[in-house]
Amino acid sequence: MTFANAGTLGALPGRRDELVAHLTRPSTALAEVGCLLYEVGVSEEHPDTVFVVELWTSAEAHRASLELPEVQESIAAARPLLSGEFGGFRFDVVGSPLRGGA
Amino acid sequence: MTFANAGTLGALPGRRDELVAHLTRPSTALAEVGCLLYEVGVSEEHPDTVFVVELWTSAEAHRASLELPEVQESIAAARPLLSGEFGGFRFDVVGSPLRGGA
Repeated sequence: MTFANAGTLGALPGRRDELVAHLTRPSTALAEVGCLLYEVGVSEEHPDTVFVVELWTSAEAHRASLELPEVQESIAAARPLLSGEFGGFRFDVVGSPLRGGA
Repeated sequence: MTFANAGTLGALPGRRDELVAHLTRPSTALAEVGCLLYEVGVSEEHPDTVFVVELWTSAEAHRASLELPEVQESIAAARPLLSGEFGGFRFDVVGSPLRGGA
């Protein structure tokens, strides 16, 4: 079942764009473990926040991605940019009006 | 610029799946006005909440979709199912590690 993660990551003042650069660094490993979509963005209204929406082939694929050496290194490297504020939600996809229903 | 909306909609107790059925009803109008992705889902941890992640060709496309007669009718029909609790966030997409960066 497709799994979705929508999240916010607080950045230290002035470090948001570094965090964006970090999160958008090209990765082939993510797709290999089942990442279907990974969009990173910003909002003028929240200048110290980075936003992500992700789709994965399953919740297990998402969990497995966190164990990848590449992802672990990325998390460690991003840590000095983070304020410690996180938000968002996770859910199981059950349908789409674009695909013709649930 | 691609625009993302990630949201939560509170449903009245026991009405969540009706709300899901509503939000996943097939629509060709959404794609016509610029909807790129519209995933609807649920979570065992939050039994009275429906989750959505949406991607649009622009923030304007998203705004325009709310004016479509089809969407207005859908909003009116869904209203009796809603608890009135809403959450989530919106942002401008700046890149993806799957596409090779920002």
